[in-house]
Amino acid sequence: MPSLILVRHGQSQWNLENRFTGWWDVDLTDKGVAEAKAAGTLLADKNMLPDVAFTSLQTRAIRTLHYALEGCGRLWIPETKDWRLNERHYGGLTGLDKAETAALHGDDQVKVWRRSFDTPPPPLAAGGEFDLAADARYAGIPIPDTESLKLTIDRVLPYWEAIILPVLASGKNVIISAHGNSLRALVKHLSDISDDDITELEIPTGQPIVYDFDDQMQPGARHYLKDR
Amino acid sequence: MPSLILVRHGQSQWNLENRFTGWWDVDLTDKGVAEAKAAGTLLADKNMLPDVAFTSLQTRAIRTLHYALEGCGRLWIPETKDWRLNERHYGGLTGLDKAETAALHGDDQVKVWRRSFDTPPPPLAAGGEFDLAADARYAGIPIPDTESLKLTIDRVLPYWEAIILPVLASGKNVIISAHGNSLRALVKHLSDISDDDITELEIPTGQPIVYDFDDQMQPGARHYLKDR
Repeated sequence: MPSLILVRHGQSQWNLENRFTGWWDVDLTDKGVAEAKAAGTLLADKNMLPDVAFTSLQTRAIRTLHYALEGCGRLWIPETKDWRLNERHYGGLTGLDKAETAALHGDDQVKVWRRSFDTPPPPLAAGGEFDLAADARYAGIPIPDTESLKLTIDRVLPYWEAIILPVLASGKNVIISAHGNSLRALVKHLSDISDDDITELEIPTGQPIVYDFDDQMQPGARHYLKDR
Repeated sequence: MPSLILVRHGQSQWNLENRFTGWWDVDLTDKGVAEAKAAGTLLADKNMLPDVAFTSLQTRAIRTLHYALEGCGRLWIPETKDWRLNERHYGGLTGLDKAETAALHGDDQVKVWRRSFDTPPPPLAAGGEFDLAADARYAGIPIPDTESLKLTIDRVLPYWEAIILPVLASGKNVIISAHGNSLRALVKHLSDISDDDITELEIPTGQPIVYDFDDQMQPGARHYLKDR
């Protein structure tokens, strides 16, 4: 029976700087690269070999995928990149660090945006530094100007159902290299986690999470590959 | 109008050792990595940005593609890997270096296999060190046991016509990261080179070759991107 492997990208420069990143295309740090390579080694060591790969349109997830696949000798598997696996769009918070955000909006409000299930941050101003309208990668794509976790789930799950699940159901092991919140969307669905609890669940960077599916295509318990 | 970019993978360990490689999955050397990165920088400098990528199932071509795309900020474009872009299969010569091959078969015979258009080397022995029958990447694929350049062309061109050309005809710039002989197959076709002449044409590693297509989807003259 097939397994689903979820990997959150390794540390990015803005993870390190504690800045809201969202759809901004921030690259991995050296530590992030090392985390991605370690994920690949772990996949090989545990003989958890993916047959098909999915990732977002964001460099940090794509590079994490490539290092992980290289590490387990599977760079040759089919790979699909889709914006619906992108990180949650943090709207007007994009680029701000913790201190800047608190100074602008107050700690309480920031906590609401970070931890609320369905309250999106203020929208990103059009034409500003982080406007993606001119980015060729998003041509023809309905770029959000902000997203709550709920809105993120609303675009991740239809993609999961329509595109990824059928591949898994065909018996193939699937790896998804993505982001904290696009992976939260999947984990919430697969592990049946409540709206309140999911916002508290941290997905560690570069640490493969595995679901084994049964012959009814029902997922088993979520576990870290390292613990298997 | 769209452009086609051809890149032969950077130097591999067996390029360096002068061994027949073919379908054996030999990785890039550090020099090969540097060549691939330089190709990416050149694509960026010349603003020759690919929209869609194709490569083989072989690590050296896939990694070359990834470095090249990373270098020009295009890691997010769709990427398809297919065995029909693999290197020519060198049959029983796989793994032999120049001296070993000459000692076994004689210099004249080796020249024939290297430079003949349609004489394949002796077949690879089944069950030997370089047998790929157990390699998951080739499951369901008709693995050859040897190929002439002609036989290589016979699998590259149908793929070009059916899969790659329609993407180019839709107006997208296409990059193909592949191998000396799968790229010879394309160059022979696009530049109308004779059977005799094509075996003498060397495709340099990591050096992007460009064809600009006209509105009748006819290719212009072949040129190196560095000379543009």
